[in-house]
Order: sequence, then C-alpha cells, then structure tokens
Amino acid sequence: MHRAGPLFTDLYELTMAACYHSLEMFSKATFSLFIRAYPPKRNYFVAAGLEDALRELESYRFYPEELDFLASTRRFPDNFLSYLEHFRFSGMIYALPEGSIFFTNEPILEVSAPIIESQILETYLLNTIGFQTLIASKAARCVYAAQNRPLIDFSLRRVQGLDAGQKVARSTYIAGFEGTSNVLAGKIYGIPISGTMAHSFVMAFDSELEAFMAFSNLFPKNTVLLIDTYDTVKGAHLAVLVAKKMEAQGEALNGVRLDSGDYVKLSNQVRRILDEAGHPNVKIIATGGFDETKITDLLARGAAIDAFGVGTKMGVSSDAPYLDIVYKMVHYNGRDVRKLSPGKKTLAGEKQIFRKKDEKGRFKEDVLGLRGETVGDADPLLEKVMEDGKILCPHPSLIRIREHFKKDFSGLPEKYRSLSRRNFYPVTLSARFRALQDPINK
Amino acid sequence: MHRAGPLFTDLYELTMAACYHSLEMFSKATFSLFIRAYPPKRNYFVAAGLEDALRELESYRFYPEELDFLASTRRFPDNFLSYLEHFRFSGMIYALPEGSIFFTNEPILEVSAPIIESQILETYLLNTIGFQTLIASKAARCVYAAQNRPLIDFSLRRVQGLDAGQKVARSTYIAGFEGTSNVLAGKIYGIPISGTMAHSFVMAFDSELEAFMAFSNLFPKNTVLLIDTYDTVKGAHLAVLVAKKMEAQGEALNGVRLDSGDYVKLSNQVRRILDEAGHPNVKIIATGGFDETKITDLLARGAAIDAFGVGTKMGVSSDAPYLDIVYKMVHYNGRDVRKLSPGKKTLAGEKQIFRKKDEKGRFKEDVLGLRGETVGDADPLLEKVMEDGKILCPHPSLIRIREHFKKDFSGLPEKYRSLSRRNFYPVTLSARFRALQDPINK
Repeated sequence: MHRAGPLFTDLYELTMAACYHSLEMFSKATFSLFIRAYPPKRNYFVAAGLEDALRELESYRFYPEELDFLASTRRFPDNFLSYLEHFRFSGMIYALPEGSIFFTNEPILEVSAPIIESQILETYLLNTIGFQTLIASKAARCVYAAQNRPLIDFSLRRVQGLDAGQKVARSTYIAGFEGTSNVLAGKIYGIPISGTMAHSFVMAFDSELEAFMAFSNLFPKNTVLLIDTYDTVKGAHLAVLVAKKMEAQGEALNGVRLDSGDYVKLSNQVRRILDEAGHPNVKIIATGGFDETKITDLLARGAAIDAFGVGTKMGVSSDAPYLDIVYKMVHYNGRDVRKLSPGKKTLAGEKQIFRKKDEKGRFKEDVLGLRGETVGDADPLLEKVMEDGKILCPHPSLIRIREHFKKDFSGLPEKYRSLSRRNFYPVTLSARFRALQDPINK
Repeated sequence: MHRAGPLFTDLYELTMAACYHSLEMFSKATFSLFIRAYPPKRNYFVAAGLEDALRELESYRFYPEELDFLASTRRFPDNFLSYLEHFRFSGMIYALPEGSIFFTNEPILEVSAPIIESQILETYLLNTIGFQTLIASKAARCVYAAQNRPLIDFSLRRVQGLDAGQKVARSTYIAGFEGTSNVLAGKIYGIPISGTMAHSFVMAFDSELEAFMAFSNLFPKNTVLLIDTYDTVKGAHLAVLVAKKMEAQGEALNGVRLDSGDYVKLSNQVRRILDEAGHPNVKIIATGGFDETKITDLLARGAAIDAFGVGTKMGVSSDAPYLDIVYKMVHYNGRDVRKLSPGKKTLAGEKQIFRKKDEKGRFKEDVLGLRGETVGDADPLLEKVMEDGKILCPHPSLIRIREHFKKDFSGLPEKYRSLSRRNFYPVTLSARFRALQDPINK
C-alpha cells in the first residue's frame, strides 16, 4: 500500500517534538495503544493492521518536499528541521499478532523509543491499526452470524475512501470472509475476487434472457445471474433456462443473486423453482444491506440463502464506525506514568497480556501484567516485532493470519461470541502490576 | 492525491465490460449518480469530490502491471485485455459544482459515454463522491451548530483509512471549518493547520507549569495550553501565570484547551479565572467527542467555549456513516431506461435540476426536468464539466468552492437547516419529465 509518510499526523505531534528537541529531551518513552471501551454489543476485538504499521515505521523519513512544507509554515526552528532530515525510527515494538482476539485495556502494541520518535507515530498508528481492527472485529461478527455460509466483501463502493476499500478487503479476509469484489485488493493481497453483473447489464439488453445468455456464453465458469431487475420469480424461471443450456454444453450455472424484496419468501420460491427443475446445485446468493443482524434475522426466519455479499454496513462498521482507541504514554525516563483526566485514566507501566486457557484451549481469563513477569501457565501474547527500528521477522502471510484468527476464535467461549448480549470477558491485573498503579499520583 | 486506478472497482464492472465488448455493444449509455434517501435527521446534502473524480477520469488507463493481473485471473478473453490496453474515458459529464446544496433524487453528476466506459466508473465514482459528500454534509451541520464559532478538524487519528483523512479535511473546509490538525492536508490543499500539545507532553515534564512554560517559550505565537491533564481549575491558574509571563515579553497566550469533564461548568470557571486575572482575550477551545449534537447542547447550556476541535464523530459521520448513493443507467442506445426492483425504482432520462428562488435568493423549490428543457426563471444547476474525456475548465479553488457553499447555504431556508427536525425540501418533476416516466415499463 501507499506510504502514509510523516506528514500524515496531527500538527501537535510535531510541535511537541520541536519542544523536546529544543530542550534535548531524548529519554525513552513507552506508549501503549489500546481500546478503552467496547462499542455497543461488542465483547471482543480482532487485531489487524500491524503489517502496514511496521512497514511504514521501517521506512519512516521526511522527504525534502515534506521538510520544505514544514519550513514554509514558519512554525519550526531551523535546527529542528535539520534534525528531521535525518530522523529515523529506532525503537522497539511489542505487538499482538494480527488475527488475535483481545479485549479492552489490553495493549495492541507498545512502542518504546526516544520520546520524539514514539510520540510522533501516534496519529498514524491510531488510524491504521484502529480502522483495520474495527473492520476485522465487525467482519468476525458477520462470519459468526452466517453459520458457515460463505461471505464476500462487496463494500468497496461505499467505504470511506480509497484506502479503506483495500483495508476492508484484507481485514474481512482475516476474519473469515471468502473473497471480495474489490479487484485491486485481489491484486495487492491475493484475495479471491468475485462478481458478475449489475442491473444495468440486464437493462442494456432487449430482454432479461438475452442478457443472461450473453453472460453465460462468455463466462461459462463464473456465472451468477442477477434475477431481480424486473421480477424475481420470473427471473428464476429464466435462470432455469440458462442452467439447462449450460448443462447441455457440459457447463454449470453457479448461482443466482437476489438484491431486493422479501428475501425469506423469494429465496424459498427461487429454491423451489431451481430444485424442481433439477438444479439443486445452483446457489442462491443474497446482497443488499446485509450485516450480522440482517443475516441472523433472515436465517432464523428460514431464508434459503447459500452465501451473502456483505457491503456497506460492514465496510463502515455502521453500528459502531469508530473505536475508542488511544495511544498513551505509560513509561518515561525510567518512571511509570499515567493520565488522570476524568473518565480517561490509563494504566501505567510496560505491559504483557497473559491468557489462561482450559484443557480444551478455551479462554478462561486474561491477566495484565508487567512485561518481564511470568503468570502461572498462561501464555504471553505480545511479541517483540521490531527492535532498533528493524522488523524482526517476516510478517506472516494473510493465510496464516486468517488461520490464527480461526484458531483464536475457536477458543473464545460461546457467551462472548454473542452478537447482542454483553458478556465482559474477565481481564484482571497481576498483583505486581496492580501494586504499580496505586502509588502513582501523577 | 493518489491515483485510484481502474482496478479500484468491483469485479462485475469488468465482467460486464467484457460482455459488452464481445458483443460489440458500444452504444452510448448515461448513468446518473444520486442519493435515494436522507439519512436520519438530514434535510440536505453538500456536493463534494468532483475535482478528484474528474482528475481520475482524465488520466484513466490500465497500466501494464494492472493488465497482467487481470490476465492472471484467467477470466477475461485476450481481445478484451488488448482493448483495455488502449482504453481511455471519452465521455461527457454534467455535474453539480462542489459546495452546492442538493436534495434526494437529484443527480450529483451524469456520465454519458459508450456503455463500457460509463459502466466501469461506477464503483470509483460512488466511493469518492459519496464519501466526500457525506462528510461535507455532516460538517455543514457542525458549522451551523457552532453559531459562528470556529471549528477545527481534529479527526485524522480515527477516520477510516489514510486518504479519508485528507478528504475529511478538504470536505470540512468546504463546509466552513477554519482549519485542520492534519499536516498532510495542509500541504496538499493549503488548508490552515492547527495544534499544540497532548497530555503526554504535560506528563513528560516534572510539573505542568514547566511543560507550559517550555512550550510557550518555543511557540510564542501559537500557544494553546492543554489544562486538564491533572485538574482543569488548577491548570487554568497555571495558564494565567503563563499568560502573564508572555504578556511581560510582549507576547500573548492564544488559548487553553479543555478535553474532559463537565464542559459547561469548567469552561465558565476557567473563563472567570482568565477574566479576573485580566486575560479576556485568551480563548477557550474544547475538544473531546464533539459533533453538532454535543456542540448544540453545550452552547444551549451556557458553555463559555470560543472554538471547537471536532474529531471522530464528524470524521466518520458517526450517526450516518454512509449515504444511500447509487449510480443508475437512465438512458441507453437512444432510449430512456429505469430499474423497477421493489424499493429501488429510478427515474429514466438525462436530467437537469432547476432551482426556483424568491426575490431574496432563498430556495423555494427544485424542479427535475429534461436536460434540454427550460423551466420558467429557474437556474439550471448541472454544468457540463467534461467532454470527449477532457476537463472543460480549471477546477475552482478550494476558497471559491467554500464561498459557493456559503452562498448556497445562505439561500437554504431555516427550516431545512434544522439539525433534528425532518422538513423535506420540495423537489418536483417538470411536466415533460414526468410524462417520460409513465410509459416506460421496463
């Protein structure tokens, strides 16, 4: 993906940096990236976005035209601009692997570096990890709702910008979607791409049947007919004619798509028409405003739908379009620090997440502890992924991230998977970590 | 901004194009981009995103690596891929100028071109114009709520992706925001940038006062002190000390920032402390979860706030994070066409919007008519902006677009500006245009 670059930042990161520079404040600071609260109905999050972040940081630098722009604002001392010319990120990062399930107040990552370096990343890290985590978490809910039916990301047209489209495709694939309509995401990430025809295609022909035949002639291996342009039931009967023609040619119609109307009633009517004509293998794909709620509702009401195209509502996480994600200083110049503003208190100190599981691998409890601690037989989750500004090992493939999510999700007890009930997974503090919080009074 | 490129598309645009190509269907099709329904509480929209769209289309082409990717999918006939190699957009576009106020079912733009060309743009146009229009429309509500107090875009850290941040900064500036924290948007668009310090800055010093003094020493012309890290009232007293020191040096403290707590109570306490110390010119800036609703509420309750930093909720349009925006074929091969799917009917034909105003320039009514029609003394709003694939005249500057919005907004009657009441602005059909809709039965 495109470089964000160091000007992708709130101005205050740079004014603070200029201050630290002028006062020669180069002590190490550790910042923790975490989510303060669950959005409505959420009980867990799915980590995503780390690969982008690490690549950006490894190549982080100010290009001449970027420095020229900063100079043109007449806000910054010359010696600070000279300093930026040679600026590189030299710090250390602990992070949750992408695809990991995690909970509020648990660090997604912690950055330790001279304070200018760790501070200056704030805006970018919040944006890139926050958004991808938001979407992976939303997509996981859709996958759960669909009960093993395939889901395809159809959100590109209404997501919030160009970059969002690519990140949504990647995040949904991590969370178990089978593919995307987004061709560029297919190219960048190798995600399977999918899609056939719009209503305008049907309308461009003198008859619906002519449109269907033309398409199936050109794409005998990839035909899904959109049958609701004029009348879904009539469309289904035409689809049967196409299926018969394809069968006679040794081919097979993949499916039909419903995009409007009463999905429960229509899908069952269409299923019956296809089955009675001897085409039980033709799948019914539904699109049109789907998210975990609508999927759950239609399946509960007996819709005969084999796969869903999931678009806008998932792609912008419409019921919760942002996370209360923050990046807070927890350690500076050898001391643990915390913020005490009302309603915005933070936990001081460099952390590790320890996850306790039962004998079947089900999550029992997480313990937030000190980074160096060991907590019983619990697994530490944060891994050192960057040191001296260098990525420590190759990032896992998207397929492996997807498998990691699947495994983690299989360990999440059913009560936390709920799409509507709040069940707060227990996250406690280790004795040593709790002791650290009390005496700190600023 | 970055090129999106032709792979920024749903796959079906390309499969349909391949079909049209194989059947030599090159007739002209006109597509209309419009919004079907208002999101909750909205009575109008603000058009944005046209400049990006026109630039993209003028340079629209398939690069070799993009063609290689398409070939690698083994979905497309070779002669179609050869055709794409020389593909350019050669069509005509009518559009609403950016910054225009418009209503449901009114075209934001209409594209006329050989069907492959007009169809293939769908995903990109919906995305780029839809998102920017969404945010400009949301931002206009915030500006209205603030009653002439300046607003600054502080959303970059939690918007949905990288380019979303730039588009939000630009769209909010069109709608009347005074600036942005987003440095990159300052560079790209020349929008004034703003920002000073975070809580971590205050925490990095041994005392709050030390942090404040250090900052004001380095930035005597741009100091806004964040006073809620420990205790807002104590912070305000420290701000007075800084203001006195700056005054003695012939400088002036710009302001203090509140980011938490009871804003009504605290802002009045802080105002009193500053005033009684002889600093009535020090502004109070509030940040933290602001949108039009919270701004309205706090001002109604007497908050002493001079300016707002408006972030996440505006930057993702959290109460309505997408528009029901569509791109529908309305004319093909010499005939007007429309879609009849339940709840998704479209208006056939190439359109013009005619706006009737009273003698004071207030909007009275819009009439949707045929492109060639004249409707009384009403102004036609759609302008021809592209012909033969070429942009017809230089795009207006951001300042001019902003002025255009301001003028349009001044003509919008008060009842439609309401932030919570639904008042549907009248959009009627001209007699000729209405007559066109009836006989069309497919």
